[in-house]
Amino acid sequence: MALDIVIMAAGKGTRMKSSLPKVLHKLAGRSLLQHVLNTATRLSADRIITITGHEAEVVEAAVKASNLRFVRQEPQLGTGHAVQQAVPSLQESGTTLILNGDVPLITERTARALIEACGGTKLALLTIDLADPTGYGRIVRQGDSVRAIVEHKDATAEQRQIREIYTGMMAVPTAALKRWLSNLKNDNVQGEYYLTDIVAMAVADGTPVVAAQPLTEAEVLGVNSPVQLADLERRHQRAQAEHLMNDGVRLADPARFDLRGDLHCGTDVEIDINCIFEGTVHLGSGTRIGAHCVIRNARIADNVTIHPFTHIDGDKDGASVGAGSLIGPFARLRPGAQLAEEVHIGNFVEVKNSTLAKGAKANHLAYLGDATVGERVNYGAGSITANYDGANKHRTVIGNDVHVGSNCVLVAPVTLGDGATIGGGSTISKPVPAGQLAVARGKQTVIAGWVRPVKKKG
Amino acid sequence: MALDIVIMAAGKGTRMKSSLPKVLHKLAGRSLLQHVLNTATRLSADRIITITGHEAEVVEAAVKASNLRFVRQEPQLGTGHAVQQAVPSLQESGTTLILNGDVPLITERTARALIEACGGTKLALLTIDLADPTGYGRIVRQGDSVRAIVEHKDATAEQRQIREIYTGMMAVPTAALKRWLSNLKNDNVQGEYYLTDIVAMAVADGTPVVAAQPLTEAEVLGVNSPVQLADLERRHQRAQAEHLMNDGVRLADPARFDLRGDLHCGTDVEIDINCIFEGTVHLGSGTRIGAHCVIRNARIADNVTIHPFTHIDGDKDGASVGAGSLIGPFARLRPGAQLAEEVHIGNFVEVKNSTLAKGAKANHLAYLGDATVGERVNYGAGSITANYDGANKHRTVIGNDVHVGSNCVLVAPVTLGDGATIGGGSTISKPVPAGQLAVARGKQTVIAGWVRPVKKKG
Amino acid sequence: MALDIVIMAAGKGTRMKSSLPKVLHKLAGRSLLQHVLNTATRLSADRIITITGHEAEVVEAAVKASNLRFVRQEPQLGTGHAVQQAVPSLQESGTTLILNGDVPLITERTARALIEACGGTKLALLTIDLADPTGYGRIVRQGDSVRAIVEHKDATAEQRQIREIYTGMMAVPTAALKRWLSNLKNDNVQGEYYLTDIVAMAVADGTPVVAAQPLTEAEVLGVNSPVQLADLERRHQRAQAEHLMNDGVRLADPARFDLRGDLHCGTDVEIDINCIFEGTVHLGSGTRIGAHCVIRNARIADNVTIHPFTHIDGDKDGASVGAGSLIGPFARLRPGAQLAEEVHIGNFVEVKNSTLAKGAKANHLAYLGDATVGERVNYGAGSITANYDGANKHRTVIGNDVHVGSNCVLVAPVTLGDGATIGGGSTISKPVPAGQLAVARGKQTVIAGWVRPVKKKG
Repeated sequence: MALDIVIMAAGKGTRMKSSLPKVLHKLAGRSLLQHVLNTATRLSADRIITITGHEAEVVEAAVKASNLRFVRQEPQLGTGHAVQQAVPSLQESGTTLILNGDVPLITERTARALIEACGGTKLALLTIDLADPTGYGRIVRQGDSVRAIVEHKDATAEQRQIREIYTGMMAVPTAALKRWLSNLKNDNVQGEYYLTDIVAMAVADGTPVVAAQPLTEAEVLGVNSPVQLADLERRHQRAQAEHLMNDGVRLADPARFDLRGDLHCGTDVEIDINCIFEGTVHLGSGTRIGAHCVIRNARIADNVTIHPFTHIDGDKDGASVGAGSLIGPFARLRPGAQLAEEVHIGNFVEVKNSTLAKGAKANHLAYLGDATVGERVNYGAGSITANYDGANKHRTVIGNDVHVGSNCVLVAPVTLGDGATIGGGSTISKPVPAGQLAVARGKQTVIAGWVRPVKKKG
Repeated sequence: MALDIVIMAAGKGTRMKSSLPKVLHKLAGRSLLQHVLNTATRLSADRIITITGHEAEVVEAAVKASNLRFVRQEPQLGTGHAVQQAVPSLQESGTTLILNGDVPLITERTARALIEACGGTKLALLTIDLADPTGYGRIVRQGDSVRAIVEHKDATAEQRQIREIYTGMMAVPTAALKRWLSNLKNDNVQGEYYLTDIVAMAVADGTPVVAAQPLTEAEVLGVNSPVQLADLERRHQRAQAEHLMNDGVRLADPARFDLRGDLHCGTDVEIDINCIFEGTVHLGSGTRIGAHCVIRNARIADNVTIHPFTHIDGDKDGASVGAGSLIGPFARLRPGAQLAEEVHIGNFVEVKNSTLAKGAKANHLAYLGDATVGERVNYGAGSITANYDGANKHRTVIGNDVHVGSNCVLVAPVTLGDGATIGGGSTISKPVPAGQLAVARGKQTVIAGWVRPVKKKG
Repeated sequence: MALDIVIMAAGKGTRMKSSLPKVLHKLAGRSLLQHVLNTATRLSADRIITITGHEAEVVEAAVKASNLRFVRQEPQLGTGHAVQQAVPSLQESGTTLILNGDVPLITERTARALIEACGGTKLALLTIDLADPTGYGRIVRQGDSVRAIVEHKDATAEQRQIREIYTGMMAVPTAALKRWLSNLKNDNVQGEYYLTDIVAMAVADGTPVVAAQPLTEAEVLGVNSPVQLADLERRHQRAQAEHLMNDGVRLADPARFDLRGDLHCGTDVEIDINCIFEGTVHLGSGTRIGAHCVIRNARIADNVTIHPFTHIDGDKDGASVGAGSLIGPFARLRPGAQLAEEVHIGNFVEVKNSTLAKGAKANHLAYLGDATVGERVNYGAGSITANYDGANKHRTVIGNDVHVGSNCVLVAPVTLGDGATIGGGSTISKPVPAGQLAVARGKQTVIAGWVRPVKKKG
């Protein structure tokens, strides 16, 4: 059956106190609206019509989905008025699902249940029972049938006892929706067109009005303020953490775990406290992530140990760590860091756009940028690849089994042959033949007659 | 009307199990007593009289407020005895507000409400309804009037049902207070003088006894143990977090946010998990603070990105970061770090008492101390300003557009002219002319006949 | 009286979704089974019989306790069958305590209460009242006596109202246990032998059946999934945090504190947020641990300040920090780091297998490995001990009052005499006499006619 989805995303969100339109605020690393669009995409809708208004251009440029089109609501005269703007974009028949761009956690499963409840013939409302329904529109039923949505302020004392409320989402037969929308009136105090007025029209028409319910309250919570955003973020993070734990991932503290994207884990993965994962991250079986790590867009193989305070950010180029490697603490892997098996990257070491072959080690205070590093290389403490001459970047090539001493500078472009050794403190700007020891440093001398400085009077 | 404030701060706090007097333990970076003094100051009292006893000298030296005087209570014979010590310091008329040095979160608003309830003529008690009032003194009323405070152990079964309890704070007409205090008796099991005995005296006098209530329970919670201190710290941090969020600040997790001082934020400020702010910190609009940062006494301008694991401590000299700058991860800015616009400070870089002009960069493993760095300078990986000769500190001056290579040492005092270039691995101890390339390193040679060491048998 | 302890540890723990046997999963740094064994050891049992099955060899190799023996249960035919395997290992008389290897937090106190309830003559069950007992075996009593354990599925509606449930732990007169076990039948749907069937036998025998209860629910919670493991970890961490706070330790946030081992604290110890302690750690009086620190197997003396982001891991060799020292931020102390009083280790500094005498300082970006450092030494920024020649490790000896400049390399084995000074940028491979200035660097020159590189077109 034909399916169109309308997403309300025109509001400003004044209580966010932000220059960013409300639906572009981020939850778990994605904008609220993108969450809804991703769910809409999974529903395989024929058309996804997003209604924009406040900062429409900014919103439209910030999100994407297939079959997506935007319609503008200007000025903004209520929820019914908003959906009216979408009418020309809707198909002739089938079902229209109405979602909210600031209610990000609606699930595919609940949306499908709502669409099925509609079945192209009924008006299906998404409702939920709340312990405290104060302020919400109550669902008035007659037997099983829904008869009306009564706003809190209009509700009788008896109706205020009703705990089932309307969530703002519905699925409607498209043809009927168009008819009902054309009959909406704004003869109310606010002078707005209310989408919920179609319930009375459906009842008058004899169209059955039914309800579906979500699995969790989080699915229907909207974001209107930073406090609500933070609350929903925590609920979502907890749900993600439980999902991973149910798959066997061991989290030291699910309340101190943040996933802002997609995390793919093998078996026996352990994640210590306060780690953040962003973008797309793969963790192989047996891999352990120490406390206080930040990992983004990276592929970590099996049996890797990431020590605490490690920062890995593959950004667009990605970063990869081979099986059995040891990384950190206080290590930083940047875009293009490609580490083979059993590589060791130790404290205060930065690797960028460099390939390290199996068994290579850089254990202390070092920088490897734009370098190709061979197998079993030992890259000394404090050594630096000088890859930037102030204008251009150049490559450093280090052969297998090379031993680079401490505090060396390798001035790129430069090549160190297999098995070469670089004496500590050397600045190397010319090729070093395989197997040879190269040094470039001054001769050690004692300065005769030298006297230590003394502290000057202040 | 005349207002005096008496603050009880004589107790030892045995359950803290600390050598520090209880009222000097810190909540959100300030001592418990200082919190109360700050509130007292905002009330513009004529006199603030703090009653000290245990470690009186330590307490008196540790706090400050205007119009503050101390009186000693030695020995400590009860709450009534404590306030008796303050009598000579009180004015003749007006209102006396009695607060507790270990109840830190009492708000100005609630204190004013209590003072108004007193109005210079009534005895006004601060009371609160507790779900579980066990152990507390119950407020016995007759109609609206308070008739008595009945201690838990003295209460009838019926009185124990009362959930309204006395918080330990009151506002009293000063003249009446003096009269009542002079009539206190210690004919009880503990042999102590109880301040609460004045309630019966007021009732006997026909002085109306009224009550005011705080907005939140946290306002009246006292600290008697490390567990209570930690609990109150968390309540206070949550309240601070909500206050900031209501102003538009976006916190990734309000349960993982610590503010120990004053944080001033522009619009669209984002703060990731586990950040700590101490002292006075300003964050400009659009500025984002990454996870796991510690920032103290610093001024961060607009649109700055602070990456995770950044430590900024301006201490007494302050630290500032210009608009559009990128700092971290793993960066440390120390006192006197003054960064202009669009400065980049990268991983494992330390900056102390140095000025960096617009567009200057120190991206990798470097130390800048006592340096003046020009615009667009590129300060190479591993380079160090040798600012300390073992006795005195000296200054390094780096002109605009200077390119300092990797692993250089700049031996201060030294000046690099505009546009100078320093070759990698150079130790520079003499001035470098503008536009010139300076190097100071050994010639690269291969050592003939050298043989690699082999591993010795253990 | 004779005491034997039987610990059930044969299960696989399918819901853990792990290749590791369930009882080897870790809570607070120790395996679940080891927690139970530690408690069993404190009970001074004559024999501790652990019943293994799934991955028996792995389990048996992973734990230890005195008087420990293992018996195998293969195949696994129920709890009664499991204990039957232990029968040949039990003594003739006395009491047998039955514990579970996946219920780690049972306390010595509760176990003793259960053993006392048994007294060598009664069947004593460990029971607890649950708010929601659904799914658990109910304790059916007649007066004070226990008459039966009724499984949830077999319970009448009335019995399902019972909130007292069986926890899986019991203490049994050993002789009776052997007799009852030999009469167990498996004529049930699962075809298993149930240990709980002995309750009916005891009742039939006229043996009194009694119950004891734990102090907290956490003591009887089993671990069957990563979610349950994380939940129990948090309960345990909270309990540990409260225990420390009750001893006077000040924790900035007890919800962000992790202790995986033993932490011994003096008075007035302060621990900021998100610190992790592993192995055995001692913190002296007045010592403060900054936020985000990881400390393992280390001894920190009095009045030490550990700044944020400090990583100390003594591993097997230990690490020690002398009184009044300042460490961090971003410091790393590794095994064999032995710091005397008032040592300063600053940012991006790594210390391994080195002794630093009183007042020595290494404040910036440095590596000290296999070094002996004298009193008041100032070890310059960026300086490195080159302790590894690619095959062997060598020692660096630095006398008292030595000043090592910036970016130096000390090529071990090498000795710097008392009061020696090393010029910045020097690579030192020969001994330096006491009191002398040694340098080893190139002469500073300006390269005539040099032209800066320009950026190549992409």
